[in-house]
Amino acid sequence: MKKIGVLTSGGDSPGMNAAFRAIVRTAHGLDIDVLAIRHGYKGLINDDISKVTSNDVSNIIQRGGTVLKSARCDEFREPEGRAEAAKVLEKHGIEALVTIGGDGTFQGAALLAKEHDINVIGVPATIDNDLVGSDETIGYDTALNTAMEAIDKIRDTADAHDRLFLVEVMGRDAGFIALETGIAGGAELILLPESLTDIDEVKSSLNKVLSEQRRSSLVVIAEGDETGGAMKISEALKPDFSKYEMRVCILGHVQRGGNPTARDRVLASRLGSAAVTVLKEGHSQVMVGVVNNKIKLTPLKMTFGKKKDINFDLVELAKMLR
Amino acid sequence: MKKIGVLTSGGDSPGMNAAFRAIVRTAHGLDIDVLAIRHGYKGLINDDISKVTSNDVSNIIQRGGTVLKSARCDEFREPEGRAEAAKVLEKHGIEALVTIGGDGTFQGAALLAKEHDINVIGVPATIDNDLVGSDETIGYDTALNTAMEAIDKIRDTADAHDRLFLVEVMGRDAGFIALETGIAGGAELILLPESLTDIDEVKSSLNKVLSEQRRSSLVVIAEGDETGGAMKISEALKPDFSKYEMRVCILGHVQRGGNPTARDRVLASRLGSAAVTVLKEGHSQVMVGVVNNKIKLTPLKMTFGKKKDINFDLVELAKMLR
Amino acid sequence: MKKIGVLTSGGDSPGMNAAFRAIVRTAHGLDIDVLAIRHGYKGLINDDISKVTSNDVSNIIQRGGTVLKSARCDEFREPEGRAEAAKVLEKHGIEALVTIGGDGTFQGAALLAKEHDINVIGVPATIDNDLVGSDETIGYDTALNTAMEAIDKIRDTADAHDRLFLVEVMGRDAGFIALETGIAGGAELILLPESLTDIDEVKSSLNKVLSEQRRSSLVVIAEGDETGGAMKISEALKPDFSKYEMRVCILGHVQRGGNPTARDRVLASRLGSAAVTVLKEGHSQVMVGVVNNKIKLTPLKMTFGKKKDINFDLVELAKMLR
Amino acid sequence: MKKIGVLTSGGDSPGMNAAFRAIVRTAHGLDIDVLAIRHGYKGLINDDISKVTSNDVSNIIQRGGTVLKSARCDEFREPEGRAEAAKVLEKHGIEALVTIGGDGTFQGAALLAKEHDINVIGVPATIDNDLVGSDETIGYDTALNTAMEAIDKIRDTADAHDRLFLVEVMGRDAGFIALETGIAGGAELILLPESLTDIDEVKSSLNKVLSEQRRSSLVVIAEGDETGGAMKISEALKPDFSKYEMRVCILGHVQRGGNPTARDRVLASRLGSAAVTVLKEGHSQVMVGVVNNKIKLTPLKMTFGKKKDINFDLVELAKMLR
Repeated sequence: MKKIGVLTSGGDSPGMNAAFRAIVRTAHGLDIDVLAIRHGYKGLINDDISKVTSNDVSNIIQRGGTVLKSARCDEFREPEGRAEAAKVLEKHGIEALVTIGGDGTFQGAALLAKEHDINVIGVPATIDNDLVGSDETIGYDTALNTAMEAIDKIRDTADAHDRLFLVEVMGRDAGFIALETGIAGGAELILLPESLTDIDEVKSSLNKVLSEQRRSSLVVIAEGDETGGAMKISEALKPDFSKYEMRVCILGHVQRGGNPTARDRVLASRLGSAAVTVLKEGHSQVMVGVVNNKIKLTPLKMTFGKKKDINFDLVELAKMLR
Repeated sequence: MKKIGVLTSGGDSPGMNAAFRAIVRTAHGLDIDVLAIRHGYKGLINDDISKVTSNDVSNIIQRGGTVLKSARCDEFREPEGRAEAAKVLEKHGIEALVTIGGDGTFQGAALLAKEHDINVIGVPATIDNDLVGSDETIGYDTALNTAMEAIDKIRDTADAHDRLFLVEVMGRDAGFIALETGIAGGAELILLPESLTDIDEVKSSLNKVLSEQRRSSLVVIAEGDETGGAMKISEALKPDFSKYEMRVCILGHVQRGGNPTARDRVLASRLGSAAVTVLKEGHSQVMVGVVNNKIKLTPLKMTFGKKKDINFDLVELAKMLR
Repeated sequence: MKKIGVLTSGGDSPGMNAAFRAIVRTAHGLDIDVLAIRHGYKGLINDDISKVTSNDVSNIIQRGGTVLKSARCDEFREPEGRAEAAKVLEKHGIEALVTIGGDGTFQGAALLAKEHDINVIGVPATIDNDLVGSDETIGYDTALNTAMEAIDKIRDTADAHDRLFLVEVMGRDAGFIALETGIAGGAELILLPESLTDIDEVKSSLNKVLSEQRRSSLVVIAEGDETGGAMKISEALKPDFSKYEMRVCILGHVQRGGNPTARDRVLASRLGSAAVTVLKEGHSQVMVGVVNNKIKLTPLKMTFGKKKDINFDLVELAKMLR
Repeated sequence: MKKIGVLTSGGDSPGMNAAFRAIVRTAHGLDIDVLAIRHGYKGLINDDISKVTSNDVSNIIQRGGTVLKSARCDEFREPEGRAEAAKVLEKHGIEALVTIGGDGTFQGAALLAKEHDINVIGVPATIDNDLVGSDETIGYDTALNTAMEAIDKIRDTADAHDRLFLVEVMGRDAGFIALETGIAGGAELILLPESLTDIDEVKSSLNKVLSEQRRSSLVVIAEGDETGGAMKISEALKPDFSKYEMRVCILGHVQRGGNPTARDRVLASRLGSAAVTVLKEGHSQVMVGVVNNKIKLTPLKMTFGKKKDINFDLVELAKMLR
C-alpha cells in the first residue's frame, strides 16, 4: 500500500483533527502517502484533494471541528455519485479510503466498497456515541463535559432563585449524553429515549424532590426523548408547577464544538493510528473501535442501523442519587 | 454605625458573592456587624436573617450565583410590603441596608429609603451592564466571556460545515453583551437594540461576506433587538439563504452562571468594600460605581429608568473588522 | 446495618466530593445513617464526627478538593492510634467505615479492620491512577485534562518562539499522567518511570524532531522518572541544545484541584454508591473498582504495594505520532 | 499610504493575533496592503515577509500565541542590524511598520524610526501590563484569569489539607498580575516589588490569619518581588511555620498562553485598528493605547524605561479583605 485518502463526513465532532493527525503520522511512518479529501464525500466527487505532510498536521490535535471540513452530500447517496467518487480515487491512485464519521458516513463507505471494490476503513466519530463496535466514539467525552459545564452554570442561577430548570441535551435518538451529564450534573431527573417517560411519574418525582427542602431542581432531557423534548415537557408541567419559575435551556450546537478532552484526543489518536495499521495488515470494510481498552474491528455493515445499548446500571444509579 | 444588612435581589450575576464577601470583611474591619438577609426583599419581609462572620464568607469569592439567594417579591412593590420590611429592619437594629442588584432592586431600595428614612446603598450587579453610574456592572465581564466561549465552540462546527449561524445572547433591552461578544467572537454581523435592523442590509452584508470566500458566517443578535431575536431573523432570511444550512442558537441561562472572571471579582471586591466605607462616611441613597477606574457615587434615583449608552466607536469597529 | 462512617484521607483528588455524595444518598436510600469524619484518620481519632443529611451533600458534586477535609496522621500508623480510632467508632455505633483515598489510606484501613474486626471498604481516589483493581481512579481524568490544558497553553508560547519546553507532570512513581497527557498534548517525547531514559536517545530524538522543520518542541516528563525530573533533564541537555531557548515548567499542585470532569463524577458516583451496596451485601476489606466498565471488588491488601502496569501500546503509539 | 508591514516581537501574549487581524482588516478597508513579517525583527532582517489577505486572518482571533511568530534578535540591537532592516523595508516598499510587543520592541522601533526615517507605530502587548500610555496592555487580562484559575485549583487542595501555599506569578519587575490575582484569588497576603516586603510582618500576618480559624492560607508573590520570589520566602518562613505543610507553586509559562479573554480580544481589536487609522492620519513614532476607555497616543520614547504605577487603592483593598 502506497497511497491512502482520508475524509471526515457528517456532523463534526471534537477529536476528528486528532484522528486525522494520527492517520497521517502513522501512514508516513509506514511509508504511505496520505491525500486529504476536503468537504467529505462532496469533495471526493469534486476532486477537492491534496497531499499532506506530517508538518501539515502539527498543532491541530487540540482543535475542535475538522480542518478537513465536512459537508452533506446527496449525490453520494446515488450509485452515480459513488461511481464518480470511485473514478476520482482511481485517478489519484488512492488504494484505500479512511472515513471519519458516524453511521451515515459508514453506510456510504460500505456501498462504495461493495460497488467498486475499494478498501475502506471507518473511524467512529460522533458526539452521540450511538455506534456499536466501540465503547465510546470520538467526541463523546468532550460533548459530555461541555454539556455538564453548561449545567453547572445553570445550576448556579437555579440555586440562586430556587428555580426549576429543564435542560435539553443532544444525542439524536440515543440517551448517552443525557444519562451521563444528568448524573455528572446532579440532575434530579433524567428523561431518555431508551425508557418511556410517564409524565405523571415525572410530576410526582419532582414534587417529592421539591418538597424535601431542596429548593432548586434540574431535569435533563435527551433531544430524542419520545415526549418531544424540553419545550413539550415544560408545557406538560406548567399547570401543576406554576408556583415555581420554570425555565427551559436547549444547549444546542455548543455541544459539537470545543477543544477535545484528553480522553477524546487519546481515543482519536489510537483509532486513527489503528485505521492505518489494520489497512496495512489487509483488513477492509471494518470499523476500528476500542472495546474494554483494546482495539477491536467490526464489519462496517454491523455498525449502522443497529441500536447501541445504554448502561442501565447508570439509569438505576441516577435514581438512587436523586 | 454598628449594624448593617445586606441582600441580593433580581437576576443573579457572577461576582455577587465576591461583593458580599467584601462587604462583610470591610464592615468587620470597621467594627460593624453584618446581618445577611436571604432571598432578597422577600427574605427581608419574612425575617430570613442571620448574623455572618468573616469566616462565613471564606471560599465564596470564586463561586457564581449568590449564596444569599435571590427572589422575586411582588409584596415589596407595595407600600405595605415595604412598611413590613422597615419593621423587620428596626427590630434587628439594622442601621443601613446594602442592596446588590440591578435597576429593579435600586428602585425598591429608593422607595424604602424615602418612605421609612432608612440608609440604603446600591451595588450594581447585573450581567446586562445597563446601569448608568458605573462603567461596568458586576457579572458583565463573566457573561461576556461565557457567551464568547460558546461562540468559539459554535464557530468550530460552523467552520466544519460552512454554515450560517445565528446566535442570540442576553442583555435585556441593551446591546452591551451582543456588541462586545460579537467583536470578540469575530462575528460577521451584530444586531443591537440600539440601532435599527434593516433586514435588507443584513441580507446584502451576509451575501457580501459569504461570496468573499469566507464560507462560514456568524451573526450575533441581542435578545432585545427590535426584530424580536434570532428566530425571527432566521425566518426572514430563510427564503434568500436556503442554500446555506442556517442554524439558530439561543445561549440562554448559561450566561448568568459560572465562576466570576478576575475583572468581576476585583470590581465586586472594590464596590462591596466601597459600599461600607461610604456608608460609614455618611452617604446614603447612592449607588457605588467605578468610572474611569475610580470609585464614583450616583444618586440611586439616577440609576433606574435611564438608558446607558453603548460605545458607538465599537459599533464602527465591528463593521471595519467584518 | 444501621450506621456507617465515611472519611477522605491522603492527597485530595477531584471527585472525592462526588463519591461522598453518592455514599450518603445511597445509604439513605437503604435506611442507613451516615456519619461524616472530618480530616481523615486524624479526625477519627479526635472524634471530629457529625451526622449528614442528603441535603448536606447537595451542590458538592461539581467541587474539587474534599469537603470532608484530609490530613496526614502519624498516630494512625501506630497500633495505639488505631485502637483509639476503634474506640471512637464503637462509641458512635459505626458498623462500617468507608475510606476514600489511595494506597496509604487502604493500608491503614486494612490494619484497622484486622486488629479491631471492623468492616471497611476502600474507594480508590488519587490523581496518580496507581492502584490495581480499578481501570481508573477518581481524580485521574481531571488531572489529565488539567495537565493537558496547561500543556496547550505552553505550546502557544513554545510555537510563538520556536522553543524547547520541558514540562514535568505529577504521578508519584507512576507514569500514567505523563503518558496520556503527553499523547493528548502532542508531545515530541515522553519520559516515564516505567522505562529507562537514555539521555543520548533523548538528544537524538530531539535533534531529529527539531531538524525536521518542526521548530517548537515539547517534552513531557513524569515527576517519578528515574532521571530525577525536568530540572535534571534540562541540565543534561543544556550543553548540546544551547542554541534553543529551553524552558522548564513544573506544573505542580494545580493538577490536584479543579472541578471534576464528567468521567470522574460518574466514576465517583458509581464507586461511592457501590461501596454502600456491597457493604450491605456483607462484603468487607475490599476496594470497589471499575474494570471493563463493571464494578469489581479487590481485597484491600491486594491494592497496596503492588505496581499497576501502564498500557505499553500507548507508549508505542506515542512514538509513532511523534 | 499603500503598504505597511506588521510584526510581533518580544514575549508573546494572548491577543496578539486579534491585533494582527484588526490591522489587516482595517488596512484593507482603507485600501492599504499588509505584509506580514514573521519572527519579529529577526524575520525583518532575514526578509521573512509575505503579503496577507483578509481571509488569511480568519479564525485566528481566538488563538493564543502569535501566528506571526516572535524571536529574540541581538542583531537588531546594533545599528548595522537596523540598517539591514531598513533596506528590506525599502525593498518591499513598506511605508510604515506596525510593531506589536512591549518596551524592548518599542525601543528597537524608535531607533529604527530615528536612524532611517521610517514611520512606526507601537501596539502594546505584554502580559506584564508594565507600559505607560495604556490602562491595560494586550494579554494582561488573559494572564490574570489564567493565574487566578490556577490559584482556584490550588485553593481546592489547600483547603482540603489546611495547608499554606506560596504561589509565584509572573510580571517581571511589576506587581500588576500579583496584585489583581491576589485579590481575585482571595489571597491572605500579596507580595509586590512596588512595596518592601518585611518578612517579620509577613510572619505576623500569617500567624494572625492562621490562628483565626481559617486553616488554609495562600500567599501570592510577584516574581519581581525584591525578596527573590516564592522559594526564598519559603526558606525564610520554614523555621517558624514548620507545623504547617508549606507548598511552593511557580505558575510559570502557562501564564503566557491560552485563548485570549473577551476583554483582550476587544482591546486588541481596538488598538490594532487604531494603529492603522492613526498611521493614515499621519502619526508616527507613537504607541496607541486605551486610557479611560478612549484611544490615546503616546510618543514611543515615553513608553520605555518608565515605571507604570500600580493602583495603591487596590493594595489597601487587599489588606481590608484579608
